[in-house]
Amino acid sequence: MKKLRVALLGCGNVGSQVARILLDDAGELTTRVGAELELAGIAVRNTAAPRDVELPAALFTTDAEALIDDADIVIELMGGLEPAATLIRRAIDGGATVVTGNKALLAKDLPGLSARAGEAGVQLSYEAAVAGAIPILRPIRDSLAGDRITKVMGIVNGTTNYILDAMDTTGAQFDDALARAQELGYAEADPTADIEGHDAAAKAAILATLSFHAPFDLDDVHCEGITAVTADDVAAAREQGMVIKLLAIAERLGDGNGSEGVGVRVHPTLIPRVHPLAAVHGAFNAVFVEADNAGELMFYGQGAGGKPTASAVVGDVVSAARRVVLGGPGRTESTTGTVKALPIEAVSTSYSIGLRVNDKTGVLAKIATIFTDRGVSIESMRQIPEPVDGDDPGSATLRFVTHQGSEAALAATVADIEALKVVTAVTSVLRVEGN
Amino acid sequence: MKKLRVALLGCGNVGSQVARILLDDAGELTTRVGAELELAGIAVRNTAAPRDVELPAALFTTDAEALIDDADIVIELMGGLEPAATLIRRAIDGGATVVTGNKALLAKDLPGLSARAGEAGVQLSYEAAVAGAIPILRPIRDSLAGDRITKVMGIVNGTTNYILDAMDTTGAQFDDALARAQELGYAEADPTADIEGHDAAAKAAILATLSFHAPFDLDDVHCEGITAVTADDVAAAREQGMVIKLLAIAERLGDGNGSEGVGVRVHPTLIPRVHPLAAVHGAFNAVFVEADNAGELMFYGQGAGGKPTASAVVGDVVSAARRVVLGGPGRTESTTGTVKALPIEAVSTSYSIGLRVNDKTGVLAKIATIFTDRGVSIESMRQIPEPVDGDDPGSATLRFVTHQGSEAALAATVADIEALKVVTAVTSVLRVEGN
Repeated sequence: MKKLRVALLGCGNVGSQVARILLDDAGELTTRVGAELELAGIAVRNTAAPRDVELPAALFTTDAEALIDDADIVIELMGGLEPAATLIRRAIDGGATVVTGNKALLAKDLPGLSARAGEAGVQLSYEAAVAGAIPILRPIRDSLAGDRITKVMGIVNGTTNYILDAMDTTGAQFDDALARAQELGYAEADPTADIEGHDAAAKAAILATLSFHAPFDLDDVHCEGITAVTADDVAAAREQGMVIKLLAIAERLGDGNGSEGVGVRVHPTLIPRVHPLAAVHGAFNAVFVEADNAGELMFYGQGAGGKPTASAVVGDVVSAARRVVLGGPGRTESTTGTVKALPIEAVSTSYSIGLRVNDKTGVLAKIATIFTDRGVSIESMRQIPEPVDGDDPGSATLRFVTHQGSEAALAATVADIEALKVVTAVTSVLRVEGN
Repeated sequence: MKKLRVALLGCGNVGSQVARILLDDAGELTTRVGAELELAGIAVRNTAAPRDVELPAALFTTDAEALIDDADIVIELMGGLEPAATLIRRAIDGGATVVTGNKALLAKDLPGLSARAGEAGVQLSYEAAVAGAIPILRPIRDSLAGDRITKVMGIVNGTTNYILDAMDTTGAQFDDALARAQELGYAEADPTADIEGHDAAAKAAILATLSFHAPFDLDDVHCEGITAVTADDVAAAREQGMVIKLLAIAERLGDGNGSEGVGVRVHPTLIPRVHPLAAVHGAFNAVFVEADNAGELMFYGQGAGGKPTASAVVGDVVSAARRVVLGGPGRTESTTGTVKALPIEAVSTSYSIGLRVNDKTGVLAKIATIFTDRGVSIESMRQIPEPVDGDDPGSATLRFVTHQGSEAALAATVADIEALKVVTAVTSVLRVEGN
């Protein structure tokens, strides 16, 4: 029976689980592939470092290049741009099948890597890069290849979903929910990449590239994190029958000149509690897809963690290995479309705006005039008359939800309102989706 | 640019939408495939019959064989076993790529057709056969190829979900909900295949084959429909915090002799309202998958209808056409595993049992003794003392939910209870999942 040599680069949380599966389930995987998958070695920086899983010491090496040059299949789980990019290119050029979960690298240059793999005739797979165990990239690339995706909207970062869900269920402030997530291992010691939305933005770029068959990178993504979300925002959302989620959104838009573009953005978003994404709790992920013919689809599961992510990696390995056994080049994505990324100002959305005002007489008229002047239509307004500690006794909270309008008009409206003397503070501005 | 000739067999609800997409979106599909997809013709029994979509008359022919022999890609949407099977075999043997949505044929012989395609080196694709637009077969076959699926549980028939959902939300009896579904086009004039569970059973066999890498056919599926579900059952489920869904279930089980088997079954099932499948309303479908490493996954979307199903068909066409352009044989499934189908008696499940009893004194002790003797453990019991019209004043309703037990022990328990003189009637026996 044919034997395929597998090189593993990186042995952290996910890598160690991948190694375990390749070793423990070798028999079953061999049957599925029609060839033996032999774990030839694991390249790491420090061969003596402790691992999550007990693995044979003989597998470890610091010489990634030698391992790659002798492998049929290379699994890259080091993360980061370098040396991962150089090693992946070396593997591709050497004719190896490559499986990676490296979202940073793909968000930078998925089309370039894919084209290079296409020229070499090798398969480049990366299901694990977005939403962990959830099969989402292959369905978008292959199952929906005959449809026209109009919008993709996903909870693709487990850490932020855990924090927002905890704030919603316990009423906690952001800092406390973050601290708790860190204690439980759902957030890293330095949580910046998660809570500032950078991780979700990388995934948004990858989702957009595959969904709209054109290259999008991190620079095309408008990105806002969740650090400004307060317990008051969460409570107010609840009153409105909504919940706040950090969503990665990519959608087709008119560009205002009769042609089309794609808006890609990550930001905290109000969604109605009846929306399927509202029921995604804890560190789970889900991606909601709208397509012309398929209608609404949702994919749900564990978006992070060693074992779930390893499932996606080994799925790619088995699938690509079958192709090696069958013969014929690996498949590539179609990313040569000409649809362009549009700036956030081109997006059409609706806003929920919270204000503190210190004088009720005539205030509403003044604010309503601003909305009218900016061409933004109000869907609902709610006044909460109770004063907040330290505020003037006459102060009140107003909460507006607008109909859909251009982001530019909405942003200008908020700026105008903020400039009103009677407005003490704009306490929150959140976009609304799924209405 | 290379041109691929596409033959369409059948032009009903789905076929006419497939033709429309191939004609209307030809430019975009060409870009994605890297070759032109030319709809060469549509084989139908009656070329003059009215269609859902206006299509060029010149495309229609009654000569399916001539069309197939001249095609690179054959789309079979005639349904039924013959002549579909003969025509698909002709297409495969002639070297054409085949895309079908024919669940009846696949439930009979997926492994045989797949092996034949493998020998010919052509791709056989059939994503549309299960759960319409929802990408579920490709994720199970490819994305989860490195994992060990333990259980698949799906709402895979829109008609029955529509009926059960209507019964749940309106309190309607089965017959009224069915009539309403027929009026609205969610159920056919002859609804037998749907309401008796046959359609779901075919899909269960296909899901089991791909999930457990071994051949399962319709005869391996224990099948119960929803015709016996009453408004009382639905109301009682609601009181218990549950909802009744027709589920197709395939799961790994011990066979009692130290080795493993797979139980495949379709039946009305109580599931907790907090379970993700409970939130699947109307004619929507969803498939819940449990795997060793991935954990819990769910796939949700439209399971039927012309456009959603056509999305899955054209996705298969584009994906297979890319492979033709790239070169190399089509991929096949791994179905050579030896795991066997087990009869329903081998399944471990829990029951909800509703009883009418006509004498309260000592009844509970008698019934509890039967549970004990059969080794079945009671999770909860609820007594509803109000007499039903026409019953003795002393009569009452008892509702038991058991812990997990073998189907054989549970069936024997129900038979023993039914034989008790004090038991007027066993009003309902429903299996419970997702607890």
